[in-house]
Amino acid sequence: MEAEDSMKPWIRGIATYTPGRTVEGAVKLSSNENNYGPSPKVIETLKGSVPSIYRYPYKDELVRVKTAEYAGVAPENVIIGNGSDELIDLIVKTFRGPSLGVYPSFSEYGIVSATNGMEYDEVQLKGDFTFPLEEFLKAADKANLLFLCSPNNPTGNIISPKDIEEVLNLGKPTVVDEAYYEFSNKTSLSLLPKYDNLIIIRTFAKAFALAGLRVGYAIASPEVISLIIRTKPPFNVNNLAQEAVLTALDDLEYMRDCVEKIKADRSILEKAISNKFKVFPSEANFLLFDTSPLSAQDCFNKFLDKDFVVRAFGSFKGFPGEYVRVTVGTSSENEILFAALEDL
Amino acid sequence: MEAEDSMKPWIRGIATYTPGRTVEGAVKLSSNENNYGPSPKVIETLKGSVPSIYRYPYKDELVRVKTAEYAGVAPENVIIGNGSDELIDLIVKTFRGPSLGVYPSFSEYGIVSATNGMEYDEVQLKGDFTFPLEEFLKAADKANLLFLCSPNNPTGNIISPKDIEEVLNLGKPTVVDEAYYEFSNKTSLSLLPKYDNLIIIRTFAKAFALAGLRVGYAIASPEVISLIIRTKPPFNVNNLAQEAVLTALDDLEYMRDCVEKIKADRSILEKAISNKFKVFPSEANFLLFDTSPLSAQDCFNKFLDKDFVVRAFGSFKGFPGEYVRVTVGTSSENEILFAALEDL
Repeated sequence: MEAEDSMKPWIRGIATYTPGRTVEGAVKLSSNENNYGPSPKVIETLKGSVPSIYRYPYKDELVRVKTAEYAGVAPENVIIGNGSDELIDLIVKTFRGPSLGVYPSFSEYGIVSATNGMEYDEVQLKGDFTFPLEEFLKAADKANLLFLCSPNNPTGNIISPKDIEEVLNLGKPTVVDEAYYEFSNKTSLSLLPKYDNLIIIRTFAKAFALAGLRVGYAIASPEVISLIIRTKPPFNVNNLAQEAVLTALDDLEYMRDCVEKIKADRSILEKAISNKFKVFPSEANFLLFDTSPLSAQDCFNKFLDKDFVVRAFGSFKGFPGEYVRVTVGTSSENEILFAALEDL
Repeated sequence: MEAEDSMKPWIRGIATYTPGRTVEGAVKLSSNENNYGPSPKVIETLKGSVPSIYRYPYKDELVRVKTAEYAGVAPENVIIGNGSDELIDLIVKTFRGPSLGVYPSFSEYGIVSATNGMEYDEVQLKGDFTFPLEEFLKAADKANLLFLCSPNNPTGNIISPKDIEEVLNLGKPTVVDEAYYEFSNKTSLSLLPKYDNLIIIRTFAKAFALAGLRVGYAIASPEVISLIIRTKPPFNVNNLAQEAVLTALDDLEYMRDCVEKIKADRSILEKAISNKFKVFPSEANFLLFDTSPLSAQDCFNKFLDKDFVVRAFGSFKGFPGEYVRVTVGTSSENEILFAALEDL
């Protein structure tokens, strides 16, 4: 077989995703997980559900109903995916390209566009990482599918409601990735009745501490959901993930308690980092900072010497300095981290 | 937003998958699951792993190595997917279309082609459900990606090694779906060194009883795997699925014991069904039979009256009669099923 003749022409050009590192024995602050772990009720439910793993998942509709209730929308407004990664894929499958996002942001918008043979363009954020509305609106002329991330990963800041509405006014399918919604408590949901081109995606990976089980959801108009759902694989979300979500949504108090602790610790950590580095304000469960005069790699290594794994981004093309992102872990992890920072 | 202008033109035409039904309180024989359930060691491992579900999955490479060892190939020959459903999607993303399969067979080849905007054609099996080699080779002229399923779902029969080799000789990327491999003990793996266009897909859903956790794998040449893997999402397989596979592969004896019992019971069940209906020989964990003079729906209802859920296919276009597929459950489920059959 001549691979070049058989494969789609864009396959060799696809860049792959670099996940946050895991180092045995070190505290992981590299993937914006919730280090408090899942609700004890979720753990209990899952232990009881394990024997049923030989059955194909069949609670998709129940998860949809309960997730819709949590989000304050109707089940017809919701689709459940194998993480929001899969929802990005289903959205790219559904709508025409080219797609457009900003830089730096979550790299999966571009990667998933590429795996689907869709052209992806990106507009550089302003120097302070705020949203470049004029440039984005201009670039959107050539795009059909738009990706916004608010709070933005890895910069942590939100896009203003006014800017989001300006983008929605273009009338093009527009994804607003709210993976960190519970930490910002800001959402574009109130725009949904007015804009049937709005698609919000969220996840149970962050505040709900279910990253390993892979569950995300999208919220959009019933018409848009009815299109995206046609591309959904029948058994995309595994059955333990379904059970975990159903129970996690019965214990919102636990999630909210985690979020409050993480937000409080984020403030303390931001201040501690600011004694050494330029740190950017964040409405998510992580902080980005400019590692100058250190390189990002040197900074990563110094944290690793103290048994903390952070995420080194290095330089962002078009921006000064080099950058590291650190997840806000538990309060006790933070205590040790402060001491490590002093010593850095 | 004008949905018709924004969406890809094929979206409204996608047919969706119909899963096997689940009825509370009835024995499920509709989805070819292994009703013995997973190995007790898997259950024990998972209960211990539950607290770590807040971490993104990170054992993909370990699962790959261990799965390769089980299959008798190198890790570079293997890719792990969120069920073989996802592997079909990644393969369709990687290779050019149109795609080609047979009918009746697993409907996901056509559905996944459609969600990716790929034209899919199918060739009708012969009257006795055997593989129509000449017609397939002829239709393959216009196709670039070929799907074979052996043992075939829902007919249960295998495609002869000679026919598979004739198809491989076309030099086009050819998927051989061996989801039921452990029950047939027949594989095209020995053809891999000679045919770099061969892609075998298998699953942990059937013999290993992990349907709910969604894990499948593909085996192909390192070059082909290196292409497909570029389309793989970073966290496609959830972390409990990874733990389950690692432990299941440490307890092959349990899996083989299930397979032997199911094969023995398949023979007994085949004989029992043949007293009433025309049943087709199967090398998988299910049996297909012609429900004449009953309709498939009547037959389904009569089984449901006895608290068994089977899979009603109705009529296959171009074939006489109507058809029902029944999974071979546990020996004790079979005992009750025999009595129900007598009474039908």
